[in-house]
Amino acid sequence: RAAAMAGWARAVRGLLLDVSGVLYDGGADGGVPIAGSAEAVRRIKASGLKLRFCTNETQATRENFVRKLRAMGFDISVAEVTAPAPAACRILRERGLRPHLLVHDDLVPEFAEIDKTNPNCVVLGDAAENFTYANLNEAFRVLIGMEKPVLLSLGRGRYYKETDGLKLDVGAYMKALEYACDVQAEVVGKPAKRFFESALVEMGVPPEQAIMIGDDIVNDVGGAQRCGMRALQVRTGKYRPSDENHPDVKPDAYVNNLAEAVDIILQQL
Amino acid sequence: RAAAMAGWARAVRGLLLDVSGVLYDGGADGGVPIAGSAEAVRRIKASGLKLRFCTNETQATRENFVRKLRAMGFDISVAEVTAPAPAACRILRERGLRPHLLVHDDLVPEFAEIDKTNPNCVVLGDAAENFTYANLNEAFRVLIGMEKPVLLSLGRGRYYKETDGLKLDVGAYMKALEYACDVQAEVVGKPAKRFFESALVEMGVPPEQAIMIGDDIVNDVGGAQRCGMRALQVRTGKYRPSDENHPDVKPDAYVNNLAEAVDIILQQL
Repeated sequence: RAAAMAGWARAVRGLLLDVSGVLYDGGADGGVPIAGSAEAVRRIKASGLKLRFCTNETQATRENFVRKLRAMGFDISVAEVTAPAPAACRILRERGLRPHLLVHDDLVPEFAEIDKTNPNCVVLGDAAENFTYANLNEAFRVLIGMEKPVLLSLGRGRYYKETDGLKLDVGAYMKALEYACDVQAEVVGKPAKRFFESALVEMGVPPEQAIMIGDDIVNDVGGAQRCGMRALQVRTGKYRPSDENHPDVKPDAYVNNLAEAVDIILQQL
Repeated sequence: RAAAMAGWARAVRGLLLDVSGVLYDGGADGGVPIAGSAEAVRRIKASGLKLRFCTNETQATRENFVRKLRAMGFDISVAEVTAPAPAACRILRERGLRPHLLVHDDLVPEFAEIDKTNPNCVVLGDAAENFTYANLNEAFRVLIGMEKPVLLSLGRGRYYKETDGLKLDVGAYMKALEYACDVQAEVVGKPAKRFFESALVEMGVPPEQAIMIGDDIVNDVGGAQRCGMRALQVRTGKYRPSDENHPDVKPDAYVNNLAEAVDIILQQL
């Protein structure tokens, strides 16, 4: 692995880290850290490399998300997190859009400053228990009632794993509304190019000097590579052995976990 | 209109009628008959033309569906109805499939004779209030747990109108599961060719001597035409003026309602 990365890892100046499945494994109980990952984050910060956490998390505000991670022992602050909800708020403001929200209750405060009267778009997040028949029909009616429906989807994941089993992710509900309304959703979050680019700008590092580390072959690895970054897939979180035969996406390297990735990268500097 | 149909309507020997939006308009209150349609059904039967009701209804057993229509004054029997659930049961038996059902409670009795232990496929209908977050996740887990997921969808409608507003139809949920499991559903019901063909066989009339009459430009008109039938669109039910500019489908003629269609067809005989 070190050999495979030798050519390009020397130029690295910044790392983008996915969070769920890389730093910790989520679950109804709040989740548990992945062995060695808290120490790996400290080593990145001590190395002088720039660091940014790039997540599609939409079940909590960044404040609560960061609080949970700090309680697990991670050195992380709100200012270091790139997440879909704040990115969506920027888009809503730029385009004068007033959202009807179908999101998790705990995400609603991220939209506190946004005008939500007389909606002219729908913002869809991983609403979990809020994905009721009534709420989906309501979001659908808002969309189909528009002359030109606008649907912003916070990520496009298919599903994720929690301690009590697999759950449909926001992407499945996005597809339901896309089909019913004959509209194409605009994805805010990974793998959207604009989302990675905003994380790079915030970090102050060009794509060719940045590495994305994630567990999702499509949304982390494929998305980052399309922006000109290198990307590593960890064998933790939602990683499955079949990912290594993905028809379209091939990571620049595989690593067993974040700790191993940081070992290899720091050796190259 | 009569002129437009003159060439081919003389050869007609059988009619396929859609039900919701052609015979009656549905709703939480049970629905109301469309003016002149009960008399039109009687006139078809008196004419000697073969007749079959071809519906994607999956919110009730055929028995209860027919009972409701008879109470509205329609001359209709269970043996005259082609519907997705019995067609699905034939497919399940032929292929040794044991379904996990995500359907309306009132449809479950149609599957009474089918082995549902240790499921090796999912059957999706318009489950309405049964489309809960928990039930969708459960159907998803059954599918994703299969080596080669099999999803049968009873129709693929986008949405329909009830007295209290628009509702997402089974097709939206089909798309959600298709995306999450990376699988293509097999549609049982209109517009599937096999479904129309079974109705024609039951009626004993070849496609070139049959006319489909429906309110759905894609599922009724487009589907029937792909089987070699002529198809009329009524301007009742879910008909919208924009249907007349549909990019792919053009009915053989438009009629204001079923009564007018029957007037014109019987004049040609």
